[in-house]
Amino acid sequence: MMERVPGATVGVVGGGQLGRMFAEAASPLGVDVVALDPTPDCPAVPPAADQIVADFDDRAAVRDLAERADVLTYEIELADPDALESVAADFDVEVHPTPDTLRTIQDKLVQNRALADAGVPVPDFEAVDGSDDLRAAFDSLGTPLMLKRRTGGYDGRGNAPVASVEAAREEFGDLDGFVAEELVDFERELSVIAVRGDGETATFPVAENVHKAEVLRESVVPARTSESVREQAAAVAEKVLGALDGRGVFGVELFERVSSRDTDGASGDSREREVLVNEIAPRPHNSGHYTIEGCYTSQFEQYARAVLGLPLGDTTLRAPTVMANVLAEPDAETRPAELDGVPGILDEPRLAFHWYGKREVRALRKLGHVTVVGDDRDDLLDRARDARDALFFREGTETASEPAGHSTQS
Amino acid sequence: MMERVPGATVGVVGGGQLGRMFAEAASPLGVDVVALDPTPDCPAVPPAADQIVADFDDRAAVRDLAERADVLTYEIELADPDALESVAADFDVEVHPTPDTLRTIQDKLVQNRALADAGVPVPDFEAVDGSDDLRAAFDSLGTPLMLKRRTGGYDGRGNAPVASVEAAREEFGDLDGFVAEELVDFERELSVIAVRGDGETATFPVAENVHKAEVLRESVVPARTSESVREQAAAVAEKVLGALDGRGVFGVELFERVSSRDTDGASGDSREREVLVNEIAPRPHNSGHYTIEGCYTSQFEQYARAVLGLPLGDTTLRAPTVMANVLAEPDAETRPAELDGVPGILDEPRLAFHWYGKREVRALRKLGHVTVVGDDRDDLLDRARDARDALFFREGTETASEPAGHSTQS
Repeated sequence: MMERVPGATVGVVGGGQLGRMFAEAASPLGVDVVALDPTPDCPAVPPAADQIVADFDDRAAVRDLAERADVLTYEIELADPDALESVAADFDVEVHPTPDTLRTIQDKLVQNRALADAGVPVPDFEAVDGSDDLRAAFDSLGTPLMLKRRTGGYDGRGNAPVASVEAAREEFGDLDGFVAEELVDFERELSVIAVRGDGETATFPVAENVHKAEVLRESVVPARTSESVREQAAAVAEKVLGALDGRGVFGVELFERVSSRDTDGASGDSREREVLVNEIAPRPHNSGHYTIEGCYTSQFEQYARAVLGLPLGDTTLRAPTVMANVLAEPDAETRPAELDGVPGILDEPRLAFHWYGKREVRALRKLGHVTVVGDDRDDLLDRARDARDALFFREGTETASEPAGHSTQS
Repeated sequence: MMERVPGATVGVVGGGQLGRMFAEAASPLGVDVVALDPTPDCPAVPPAADQIVADFDDRAAVRDLAERADVLTYEIELADPDALESVAADFDVEVHPTPDTLRTIQDKLVQNRALADAGVPVPDFEAVDGSDDLRAAFDSLGTPLMLKRRTGGYDGRGNAPVASVEAAREEFGDLDGFVAEELVDFERELSVIAVRGDGETATFPVAENVHKAEVLRESVVPARTSESVREQAAAVAEKVLGALDGRGVFGVELFERVSSRDTDGASGDSREREVLVNEIAPRPHNSGHYTIEGCYTSQFEQYARAVLGLPLGDTTLRAPTVMANVLAEPDAETRPAELDGVPGILDEPRLAFHWYGKREVRALRKLGHVTVVGDDRDDLLDRARDARDALFFREGTETASEPAGHSTQS
C-alpha cells in the first residue's frame, strides 16, 4: 500500500542518530516522523515532528505511536516485535520490515539459518548451548572460532574470538544461547545497503569498512576491491532481501576472503575472492551514512520511500566518498558531550559534518561523522581521518544530565 | 564572533519554507533553529527545534527569541529592524545581516541608492511621490517604465510597468512612496546567491530564472548564457556584498541585456552583454534552492555557517541542475493543501521533491519544488517541468484551517 505523500507520518521505534537522519531526510518529502524512545530529547527530536518518551517495549506507547502513524518501523534492534505485531493488528497499521524479520535478525542463530536456507553464503556456524557444544564446534569449525551471543549484542559487544572453552567462560561467564562461527580470515570488510520497496529492490554501491575494536571507523566507497567482488557483494545483498520480509533498508555486512574454491595456487590479486554475510541490520546502517552526500538518494530518504511504499530513488554514486565516524575515546569517562574543533574542519572542501545531538560522551560511543566527497579514495580517506582526528571532546566538569541506561545502536 | 558548533541556536524571524529548509540544513551541524512566526505550526516547525508564535514585530517575542538564541537572523523582509536592533543591544546578541541592511532592502529606493553608491550597476531610477514626479520620470527614464512601491512588495506584487500617470493611478491608486525604474529590455533573468561570512565571501553558480506573472517558475544552472556574462554576474554579486552589512546569504536578482555600450552594430550572440541588479533579498532565495542537490554546500547550510561566523562551505556546482517551483494555480481558491501525484514522479532518476508543509493552497502560492540533477540543461528543464506539471492540488471540500493574513515570501 502506498501512503499519502506529502502528508504521511512514520512512527519509528528508536530515536537515535538513525532516527535523526531519517527525520532530516523525511522532512523535504513532507513526511513527519514520530519517534518512540526512552531518552527525553533523544537525538531524533530536533528534526522529528514529535517524540513519545517510553521504553521500546512499552505497549501503551507503541499503541500511541500506531494511532499517530500511517506506517510503523524501527531503527533499533531492541524494538519489540511482539508489541509491534499486536499493535499493528489492532490498528490496521503495517510494520516494515515485518516483526518476523526483526525476530529473525534479533537472534543470530536464527539469522544465520534463515540466510543459509535462502542460499546466502555465510560462515560455517553451529549452535552452542554449553561446553559440549562448544567443544564440538572447535572440532567442526576450527580453533579459534568466533563466539556470539545469539541476542543482544551490537558493535562487537557480545562477540569474541575464543580458542578454548575456558577462554569462552572467562569472556562470557555462561555458555548458553550462543552461535559459534568459523573465524573468517578476511581481506576486507564490505557492506551493501539493500532496500526493498513495494515490489522492487535496490542496492547502494559497495562500501569498504575499516573497523577497530569491532567498531566501524571509516567507510570508503566504492570499496577498493575488484569489480567482480563488488558485483558479488551486490548479488549477495539482493539474495539477502529474499530471506527477509517487509519493506525497508537493510545493512548487509560482508567479509571478502580468498575463495576456498581457489586451489590452483594463484596468489595476490589474481586469487579468486568470495563474499560471506557477517550480519544483517534491518534498518539504515552506519556504513551507509556516506550515501547522504555520495548518492543521488540517501539511505534515509530511501528508508522513507521504502516503508511508505513509494518508488525507490536512484542509488547511483555521484562521486567517490569516504565517511569517518566521530567516536568517543575507548576509555572515555561519561560526561556531557561538548565537541571542539568543528569550525576548524568546516573549510575543508567538500566536507560535510553530521552531529547526532547526543548529550553524553561514553566510551566508544558514536556521536557524529564526517564525509568527504571527491576523487581519489586513498586521499579522501586521509582527509576524512585528518578532519575527524582534529575533533576532540572537552574534558567534563559537570555531572551528566542524560538518564543512564539507554544505548543506541547503528 | 564564531559561535559554538555543535550546540548553537539560531533564532530566525520567519518560519516559512526558507526557515524550514534552513532547519533541515542546520540539523546535521548540530545547530538548533527557533523560528518566530505568527502562523501556528508554520512550515519550519517539523524540522525546527521550536517555534515562538507571534507577529514578526512583537517585541516581547523577539526578546524571547534573543534569550534563546546565540545569533538572530530573519528569513523574511517583513522582520522588524527596529525590534531586532533594540533587542540585540539589550541581550548582546548579534543580528545577521544587520538591521540596517534589512532597512536598506525594505525600501527599494534606498536599496537602489545604496547599490548605485557602491558602484553596482542598477537600472536608471527616480523617486516618485506624486504625479509630477512620475511625469518627470517618463521623460528621464522613457515610456513605459517600471513603477515599484518602495516598501511591502514581493513576488511582483507592488510592481507594475506603466505607460501613463492615469495607468499608474489605476494600478496603484495613490502615487506616493514609489520608485520608477527604466524598463529593462532584458534577454534573460539571472541570479546569484552571494554569501558573506566572517571576513570571507562566496558566490554560488549563476542561475538562469524563468518567471511568469512575475513569479519564479524555474531556475536553470549554470545559466544558459556566455561564460563572460556569468563572470560579470558573479562580480556584480560580490560588489553587492560591499553595499550591505552583516553576515548572511543574499539573493541577487539580475537582468542580462545587450550592453548600451554596444554600438558597433553586432547582432545575436556576438553582442556585448551587461548585467544589472534588479533586486536583493537579504536571505536565502528561491533561485538558490537548486543548491541543495546541485552544490557541495547548500545555500541553507551556508546560511547557518555565515550567521554563526563559521567558515563558508564549498559552493562548487556538482552537476547541471534545474529547479521547478510547485505553485498553486493563479486562480486557485484558498483551500487545504493536498498535493496529488508525488509518488508518480519519485521514480524519475535524480529527482528530488521538497514540500514546504503549508496547510493552505492560495493563488500562486509557493508550496514546494522539484529539482533534477544531470547533464543537458534543456533536457533537465523539460524533465523538471514535466514532473512539476504532473502534480496537482486536490479540489477543496473542507474549510481552510490556517489563520488568514499570513504570507510568506521567497
